[in-house]
Amino acid sequence: MAPRALDYESLNENVKKVQYAIIFTNVGNPHALGQKPLTFPRQVVALCQAPFLLDDPNVGLLFPADAIAKAKHYLALTTGGLGWSVEGAYSDSRGMPGVRKEVADFIERRDGYPSDPELIFLTDGASKGVMQILNTIIRGESDGVLVPVPQYPLYSAAISLFGGSLVPYYLEETENWGLDVNNLRQSVAQARYKGITVKAMVIINPGNPTGQCLSEANLREILRFCYQENLALLGDEVYQQNIYQDERPFISARKVLMGMGPPMSKEVQLVSFHTVSKGYWGECGQRGGYFEMTNIPPKTVDEIYKVASVSLSPNVPAQIFMGLMVNPLKPGDISYEQFIRESKGILESLRRRARMMTDGFNSCKNVICNFTEGAMYSFPQIRLPPKAMEAAKKAGKVPDVFYCLKLLEATGISTVPGSGFGQKEGYMENYSSHFSPFVSEGGFAPPPILFFCGVFHLRTTILPAEEEMPEIMASFKKFNDEFMEQYDDRGGYSRL
Amino acid sequence: MAPRALDYESLNENVKKVQYAIIFTNVGNPHALGQKPLTFPRQVVALCQAPFLLDDPNVGLLFPADAIAKAKHYLALTTGGLGWSVEGAYSDSRGMPGVRKEVADFIERRDGYPSDPELIFLTDGASKGVMQILNTIIRGESDGVLVPVPQYPLYSAAISLFGGSLVPYYLEETENWGLDVNNLRQSVAQARYKGITVKAMVIINPGNPTGQCLSEANLREILRFCYQENLALLGDEVYQQNIYQDERPFISARKVLMGMGPPMSKEVQLVSFHTVSKGYWGECGQRGGYFEMTNIPPKTVDEIYKVASVSLSPNVPAQIFMGLMVNPLKPGDISYEQFIRESKGILESLRRRARMMTDGFNSCKNVICNFTEGAMYSFPQIRLPPKAMEAAKKAGKVPDVFYCLKLLEATGISTVPGSGFGQKEGYMENYSSHFSPFVSEGGFAPPPILFFCGVFHLRTTILPAEEEMPEIMASFKKFNDEFMEQYDDRGGYSRL
Repeated sequence: MAPRALDYESLNENVKKVQYAIIFTNVGNPHALGQKPLTFPRQVVALCQAPFLLDDPNVGLLFPADAIAKAKHYLALTTGGLGWSVEGAYSDSRGMPGVRKEVADFIERRDGYPSDPELIFLTDGASKGVMQILNTIIRGESDGVLVPVPQYPLYSAAISLFGGSLVPYYLEETENWGLDVNNLRQSVAQARYKGITVKAMVIINPGNPTGQCLSEANLREILRFCYQENLALLGDEVYQQNIYQDERPFISARKVLMGMGPPMSKEVQLVSFHTVSKGYWGECGQRGGYFEMTNIPPKTVDEIYKVASVSLSPNVPAQIFMGLMVNPLKPGDISYEQFIRESKGILESLRRRARMMTDGFNSCKNVICNFTEGAMYSFPQIRLPPKAMEAAKKAGKVPDVFYCLKLLEATGISTVPGSGFGQKEGYMENYSSHFSPFVSEGGFAPPPILFFCGVFHLRTTILPAEEEMPEIMASFKKFNDEFMEQYDDRGGYSRL
Repeated sequence: MAPRALDYESLNENVKKVQYAIIFTNVGNPHALGQKPLTFPRQVVALCQAPFLLDDPNVGLLFPADAIAKAKHYLALTTGGLGWSVEGAYSDSRGMPGVRKEVADFIERRDGYPSDPELIFLTDGASKGVMQILNTIIRGESDGVLVPVPQYPLYSAAISLFGGSLVPYYLEETENWGLDVNNLRQSVAQARYKGITVKAMVIINPGNPTGQCLSEANLREILRFCYQENLALLGDEVYQQNIYQDERPFISARKVLMGMGPPMSKEVQLVSFHTVSKGYWGECGQRGGYFEMTNIPPKTVDEIYKVASVSLSPNVPAQIFMGLMVNPLKPGDISYEQFIRESKGILESLRRRARMMTDGFNSCKNVICNFTEGAMYSFPQIRLPPKAMEAAKKAGKVPDVFYCLKLLEATGISTVPGSGFGQKEGYMENYSSHFSPFVSEGGFAPPPILFFCGVFHLRTTILPAEEEMPEIMASFKKFNDEFMEQYDDRGGYSRL
């Protein structure tokens, strides 16, 4: 019998090519690891879901007056002023105009340059926005997109799905995962040699999984490079609130671009992404995000609007979260103190955890780890002694899988080994081989681990509860150092 | 200068080819037109958003005990039992296992055949599910999908976006928009002649925009046809709760398929879609839906899971709405009476409105309208006298645009003219020319109107408030009959 439409052999090849690890612990999912949501936005969205509460004389017993006022504000933004229906009706496919205006105001306050709400689209999480923009750009396999390696797998997956070509550029671990524009030039030259038209470049700032924060000077070089090479820049800035050092505060690609003046500020096409899922919000399950377009012609904006409208509208509760995120409480508001206490508490704890994790890794034998300057991940390098490699070979395992399995057995810390792809070649090929057997078993959610290339790496989130962190790191160190001792070969690499 | 990546001329051609009217009044959006949300589910979801309320001694003053119990139920479904985090954490990319189980139980109760939660994926609205399945099936332009004409434009838009070919099959207006399997055979034969492999068939039951309900016998013919022609069937069943006649209650494609027994029940690949946006729920803005897969091999399910995981997870609040929808209150529950009063009130009113609208159209000169058996739309045929066509020509307008503009001017009722595409040829070509200037002006949201082909049609939703309906229909009739009188030519068609 002929294969049926939904038999595996009949499927869209681009779907099959997508490499994405179905690893639940592979994502930064703060609330699943114990981070409590901020109280105020939850109060506001609860009232928007149940606006009849506003007519209840007892509402003031459960909700503070500023949450009630904010809920009324968002309920009034709905089409036709049908307050009680705001969350139940499709919004404009770009998101509610009132919220997009709040986003534009936020961007203007942040960057010091005006932003146009008509060029801001709300999305069901930043990922959906990234996918829509890549789908708009990519025409076929000869269209390339520059993506940092190591990268967040959304980019490789989406580029495969849309049938384009990923053009890797390599972050320099010894330069604290910095980006060297010469590497970019090389990547573009190699891609062109293969007949690929490089159309766009992705930056993730702060970096995922690498945690570095780009400097203004570096961003300027990147933008100049995009100008020279005629590339659109996709700025994944979802971790802009997650900064754990003071030397390089977050600066948006848009601010840097505007500061460069014409012709660049008028020419370079930039799409910037943000989300309610990260920062001290961590509202992953709500699926709220936005993208802002700079120097994108109106006809293209219309096309993007058209495609967005096919799936009607982004979910409305998350649009309200976005409004609340970009327009936070101010001193004097009733809930302000609580809001600051909660949000500062989360960020300061993350900063301490970033430090604990980096220091923990660096105290281990044969482990080197750059400090997590931002985002939510630690990305240590682990060097295996030759004897460990031999033992792995004997066990029929590639060395890093061997290490990760041993770690899992000894400590219960789930690690996600992927093998056989060099840092500079074939990185994408083996992504889907990552698998965590640990995911669905509930209980303690261990730090997820990724690695790549001949040099062995792990990605762990810094999200486990702060009070559990010393134990996790002690457990890791005990395993690692015993492992290194066991396979030590003339003292191992740590003495070299 | 070379065009930049996001200049119009550089964009993905499939994106440009998408035809989708950005017409806000073109969609069934009950809450935007005045339908109040059901109280109970809103109470539950509000508590899930603000679970700290459950610790407040006053919670019982604002929420009934069964809403509190239901909220606790959903809060307990989250990974690791971190109740307060349920809406803030990414769920499994397929949706929360507990909710998928509730959906499976609902399907089993409805159809009398067991359903497997592992084959049910929750989605951000049914549209996203439809798009994902079409993306999985379509490999390129030689892959065709049978779509009813008239159709809901999601299908044409998604097929364009994924680079496939739409193969139209025509519903018979004189047979109450029934589906003749001979037409299907003809459509498939024509497509094959053009070198297209027809891979799947879409049915919309109840019909959108045509409102017909498929009979069990008709569904059996369709399934047999899919079996013979090796087509996957996509069953858009989002209006299954919207039934306004008693002769043909909703019956799912899955139930009919299972009843046919092997080999068909084991062979025909079926994906069925449902939503929280329609029925008496109308929770469009929440973006909740699911699809259920029948006879889809595990390897394909894995591929669909993989691609779903690229955008992490469907939004969690809407997952809870879905759970509540498929697992409604039972007699004896505290909120049961209110729930029944509200839901019956909505459905009975919709039934009356369907009748008022059909009768209203049929009382008009040169207008014929099939009864809206289900869904949310009325789809009258309007026959223009030759003199009206001439007047339109003189005014430089195609006749139907001419009619619609006159209607708008005279009554304020927004109509969406699209022209120049015959019912049986070129239907898709002009979809995007529809445009309603009325949308953003708030206030009374007029019934949106679509039409197609040499025979002129309108689509209107039956959603305007019941108390406004007589006035709307009177206003329409006054305009129409005067229009027909004005352009009457030997008495017009109505006397023929």
